[in-house]
Amino acid sequence: MSLPDHVQDELASAFGARFSVKAADLSHYAGSETFHRARLPDAVIWPETTAEVSFILSLCNANRIPVIGWGTGTSLEGHALAIHGGITLDLSRMAAILEVRPEDMLAVVQPGVTREALNADLRATGLFFPVDPGANASLGGMASTRASGTTAVRYGTMRDNVLALEAVLADGRIIRAGSRAAKSSAGYDLTALLVGSEGTLAIITELVLRLQGQPEDVAAAVCAFDTLEHAVDCVTATIQSGIPMARIEFVDAETARAFNHYAGTTLPEKPHLLVEFHGSGESVRGDAARFGEIAGEFGGLGFDWASTAEERARLWKMRHGAYPACLSLRPGATALVTDICVPMSELAGAVTAARDDIREAGLLGPILGHVGDGNFHATILLDPENAEELAAAKRVATRMAERAIAVGGTISGEHGIGLGKRDLMALQHGEAGGVMAAIKRALDPNGIMNPGKLIPG
Amino acid sequence: MSLPDHVQDELASAFGARFSVKAADLSHYAGSETFHRARLPDAVIWPETTAEVSFILSLCNANRIPVIGWGTGTSLEGHALAIHGGITLDLSRMAAILEVRPEDMLAVVQPGVTREALNADLRATGLFFPVDPGANASLGGMASTRASGTTAVRYGTMRDNVLALEAVLADGRIIRAGSRAAKSSAGYDLTALLVGSEGTLAIITELVLRLQGQPEDVAAAVCAFDTLEHAVDCVTATIQSGIPMARIEFVDAETARAFNHYAGTTLPEKPHLLVEFHGSGESVRGDAARFGEIAGEFGGLGFDWASTAEERARLWKMRHGAYPACLSLRPGATALVTDICVPMSELAGAVTAARDDIREAGLLGPILGHVGDGNFHATILLDPENAEELAAAKRVATRMAERAIAVGGTISGEHGIGLGKRDLMALQHGEAGGVMAAIKRALDPNGIMNPGKLIPG
Ligand SMILES: Cc1cc2nc3c(=O)[nH]c(=O)nc-3n(C[C@H](O)[C@H](O)[C@H](O)COP(=O)(O)OP(=O)(O)OC[C@H]3O[C@@H](n4cnc5c(N)ncnc54)[C@H](O)[C@@H]3O)c2cc1C
Ligand SMILES: Cc1cc2nc3c(=O)[nH]c(=O)nc-3n(C[C@H](O)[C@H](O)[C@H](O)COP(=O)(O)OP(=O)(O)OC[C@H]3O[C@@H](n4cnc5c(N)ncnc54)[C@H](O)[C@@H]3O)c2cc1C
Repeated sequence: MSLPDHVQDELASAFGARFSVKAADLSHYAGSETFHRARLPDAVIWPETTAEVSFILSLCNANRIPVIGWGTGTSLEGHALAIHGGITLDLSRMAAILEVRPEDMLAVVQPGVTREALNADLRATGLFFPVDPGANASLGGMASTRASGTTAVRYGTMRDNVLALEAVLADGRIIRAGSRAAKSSAGYDLTALLVGSEGTLAIITELVLRLQGQPEDVAAAVCAFDTLEHAVDCVTATIQSGIPMARIEFVDAETARAFNHYAGTTLPEKPHLLVEFHGSGESVRGDAARFGEIAGEFGGLGFDWASTAEERARLWKMRHGAYPACLSLRPGATALVTDICVPMSELAGAVTAARDDIREAGLLGPILGHVGDGNFHATILLDPENAEELAAAKRVATRMAERAIAVGGTISGEHGIGLGKRDLMALQHGEAGGVMAAIKRALDPNGIMNPGKLIPG
Repeated sequence: MSLPDHVQDELASAFGARFSVKAADLSHYAGSETFHRARLPDAVIWPETTAEVSFILSLCNANRIPVIGWGTGTSLEGHALAIHGGITLDLSRMAAILEVRPEDMLAVVQPGVTREALNADLRATGLFFPVDPGANASLGGMASTRASGTTAVRYGTMRDNVLALEAVLADGRIIRAGSRAAKSSAGYDLTALLVGSEGTLAIITELVLRLQGQPEDVAAAVCAFDTLEHAVDCVTATIQSGIPMARIEFVDAETARAFNHYAGTTLPEKPHLLVEFHGSGESVRGDAARFGEIAGEFGGLGFDWASTAEERARLWKMRHGAYPACLSLRPGATALVTDICVPMSELAGAVTAARDDIREAGLLGPILGHVGDGNFHATILLDPENAEELAAAKRVATRMAERAIAVGGTISGEHGIGLGKRDLMALQHGEAGGVMAAIKRALDPNGIMNPGKLIPG
């Protein structure tokens, strides 16, 4: 398939060099950070305004051409691949910070702004945007996958931090959802519906984001445990104690080994917790002391405090580098990344079962996670040419997902469904999957919005 | 209109005494707490199980009979009135607390459980359900209006505190949305879509609620100000300072007068703030001291600390009695209650403009609100027989709503749309209103679910 001539002509004349059908330009959009890859899209456009997005969508809708949004392409389930061809909308040129209102603790941004760009811009205001998926993703992409990351245990996910948005529907209509007020009961929550919809209902063209005050004081630490069970039980006890953790991250012994290998650290090759506390001096010291006591009960070893901003930056840089670090354990490898999330009381069982499954399958799959939310990932390393290994990894991932559902949890804590978890949607949602499909049909009757993703086929 | 004979026969035989068409039973459902009233429904049923709800809905759907959910009937915009006839589903017999999981900080309840019943049940666990709309509403009703109240500034609204739910669609299908995990990115957020949908998409038959740990220490106080402007500016400064308020409520001089009149208190007839702090002893003292300093800057007078649990209970009982207290200012009166919510920086302007409007219209309308969220209400007192007065009150309410929209706020912070604010939906949402209508059609093609509410006609 390629674009009909008249469409191609119309787009070329409207967008000039911001429209391309060259393979060299398109090849960027056929890969992903994980094992998912796909054919090239038929074209890419770099829109700069909402009106342009609206123009493109109404043209594509009239001609039944798929449209796939692209933020920074860091999603992990093949979300942004043009599996049925069509036009990739690369939103990286819609990257203006439109407004910052410190007095209302909110910022208005275009979807291509990255979280690091926003936080750099906010630095002088004393405010920051807390959602932190490690990758320097676009805020439109983060909204579309309902992303979270290390700080969600304290500040929530994109669900909690997108107050309002502007979006363009399949037929080109421009809508605004939500408001700038702290809360609203004015009709259906279209903001929440579009957050997490992975570009299958609309393209988000503007976001109103909730900001947080930079904490007066911050303390962070890393601490080793003798066994995975001890580390995870320490997390459960910490969360249940109500200590307001800003971050509480688990990495297993293999991930520690990966850090040492990749980043030159000298961590003991044991399970670790990485923790951070936000507050005023006194409260941070109190919280840290209470955590220290709990960790002690679980045999936490060699508490290493990162007291300066530089030390903390190093700590979180190491953590955020976990994915390439894990990949480096097996040169040339790609990966399948799992993402279940379970109620706290089920965390220890879920993590140990996952570890056992991975071992039994003979796979290498370091485990880490945002365990304060009950969310963890296994990065199952794969030879990209080995179909059997991929099949084995998928079986492990499916077992993990089934176990998560069985204990009331979710097949995706934060990465989303994309291509990789579509087949698990029926198991997770039953009849509710049909409701999602009905909403999709109501808003996108021609099925042009990122077809083949999220909604089970 | 009345029910077709075969439907009436079928329901009578299925539900026996839990089905009624007697005017004496129906009259309870034709009124509301405010000026809204309507005709009687054709029948009322008190279902006891999800299967019964499903049976009723599929029968009504096949016969195009409206179905209106009823929790405790405390909603303020005529939400639960059977304006087109049909069957009222009184959910008060679905009032079981199905499960409390302290280790996961969640509870599973049927929709007819009231928030006071839940909190009484939770007392021994050290946990509580924080959303507090004053009225002892049902949790299904609170979810359906996306309710909040005095504690939302700290703990969020029903949007934030409903983790998952079970619901029955118009055609009788039973769906489950959400999970028991702290977060999820597994497809469209149907939980958020149903929360706030006012019974126009589905009947909620089960809720999984997020619980909070009871704070170690609590302090509360009431404090007078010389002018409304000073009190509201103090709120804005407090919120902007980042002090983690558990409650920060404003009442104007007229409301203070109403308290004295109704509850025998001896407050100065001035604007007041009522505040509460939750935390550990030290943090509560620190937060209270910082608030005291800010209040001092705005001339806060005669700080009255409620240090014992009994004193606090008295304080919040007074606050929660504000509605009958205001009504008592004018014997025989009913009321129209406004509910706008604006960004913090716009709060003072919105409150003073509302006060001026009410005065100019020659109406009596005490103002109070959950000002930490930028949300406030005017309780405009009305002679139920005086149509002109009602028209004048509606004009004031419309002006307030228009001003809220103009500054990026919302026409409803927490009460919802119901009957009373339908005409303002187009102004608030523009094209997005059409999206809401499309979703309604997709899920309820025969339009039987609480017709005439929320979606503009
Ligand atoms: C090393 C690494 C670590 C990660 N850690 C985390 C983590 O901790 N937590 C977490 O949540 N995620 C994590 N991720 C995943 C990824 O960063 C998130 O999914 C992120 O939200 C994707 O943003 P993006 O801008 O890259 O979106 P893309 O990958 O470009 O797109 C994601 C999806 O959204 C759609 N889309 C993009 N922009 C728009 C728009 N404006 N309107 C409508 N649809 C749009 C796309 O079509 C696609 O379906 C990680 C990824 C990597 C590589
Ligand atoms: C004195 C007073 C003070 C109040 N203060 C506040 C406040 O501070 N904050 C606030 O948010 N509200 C407040 N309210 C309003 C009211 O308490 C809330 O709107 C509450 O959520 C209504 O709950 P209910 O059980 O009475 O619902 P109802 O009034 O019975 O129903 C409300 C709506 O939900 C639908 N519904 C009810 N149950 C279900 C169900 N299980 N499934 C589907 N639909 C259903 C009904 O059809 C109706 O549309 C106040 C009311 C009063 C009288």
